[in-house]
Amino acid sequence: MLKLYQFFSSGNCYKIRLLLTQLEIPFESVELNILKGETRTPEFLSKNPNGRIPVLETQSGQFIAESNAILFYLSEGTDFLPKDNFEKAKVLQWLFFEQYSHEPFIATSRFWISILGKAEEYRDALNQKREPGYAALDVMEKHLTNNDFFVGERYTIADIGLFAYTHVADEGGFDLTKFPAINGWIERVKSQPRHISITQS
Amino acid sequence: MLKLYQFFSSGNCYKIRLLLTQLEIPFESVELNILKGETRTPEFLSKNPNGRIPVLETQSGQFIAESNAILFYLSEGTDFLPKDNFEKAKVLQWLFFEQYSHEPFIATSRFWISILGKAEEYRDALNQKREPGYAALDVMEKHLTNNDFFVGERYTIADIGLFAYTHVADEGGFDLTKFPAINGWIERVKSQPRHISITQS
Repeated sequence: MLKLYQFFSSGNCYKIRLLLTQLEIPFESVELNILKGETRTPEFLSKNPNGRIPVLETQSGQFIAESNAILFYLSEGTDFLPKDNFEKAKVLQWLFFEQYSHEPFIATSRFWISILGKAEEYRDALNQKREPGYAALDVMEKHLTNNDFFVGERYTIADIGLFAYTHVADEGGFDLTKFPAINGWIERVKSQPRHISITQS
Repeated sequence: MLKLYQFFSSGNCYKIRLLLTQLEIPFESVELNILKGETRTPEFLSKNPNGRIPVLETQSGQFIAESNAILFYLSEGTDFLPKDNFEKAKVLQWLFFEQYSHEPFIATSRFWISILGKAEEYRDALNQKREPGYAALDVMEKHLTNNDFFVGERYTIADIGLFAYTHVADEGGFDLTKFPAINGWIERVKSQPRHISITQS
């Protein structure tokens, strides 16, 4: 059985739970507390030298790190990833956008405010995250004004990757009420078969 | 003919020039000066709403952004990307590592010091980039101590993606002399057929 090493509140880990559930693939969950350094132990570093969750252990005992690489691994050959080479590259474009232009601002703000509960302590750093975070939401809003989903007009791992931290952006202090197209897309994602929320295992 | 929108000194753009050259695919280059805002014009934003280079225009006039998504698009079906699903996911793991844990520290430091020439002005920000930048190099060094390349013991786009900014990390103030395994790998990458340097078009 697949094994998912995860910290439950992490949106990056939720991405994998959501896809595995929608693919109806059973998996074992191993919960690690990143707040207690449990991903920096020698044992975990032998699984992912970069010391980050999620990590997926395959049935043959091999390890894959980086949430969006895991999404790709699990979805190739399924309806969640286009078969066409160009569309597959567009899915990856949005997943790299998510990790470079979105997650470091929106997820990090949520972590400081809602996971650590230290909004005051991180106030200056939070202020620096606002402009690039809203810029990422603007790019999404522009795309979703003309498209129902990110690639090929259907639900793919590009949507899963971007949904994870976008739909809880308010927990990072971002006001989503100004983004009608994003809100419409959030409802479309939530209405997909076998959708689970970020608080469900 | 493929068209590459690029800023020549960018390592992200060099990745694409290097792969296209090694694949012996001819392309037209469109140079944009990011220092003059040429990637923030309405015309360019219609190609990539995120306003970043590189962007690849396909022969049918479609656009792909994000350097590592472009690497994937160009290499699928070639010797530069494994066909095996697990190995392909490992290539993506390292490319996401590059964009999340490496480029924001090492490439950004090089940009401030060697492209903008403003090391003094950015001194505090540069200091913040040192620890995570060296942490990324440590992860690479550990892997390369036991492996000749990043995935499958042969040269792939994972190596191209990580080579681009690693081999010029000294231009961002990082001391590479402490990383013997990385230096050995740099020489192996440079000895690949049809290799071009970052200053070659």
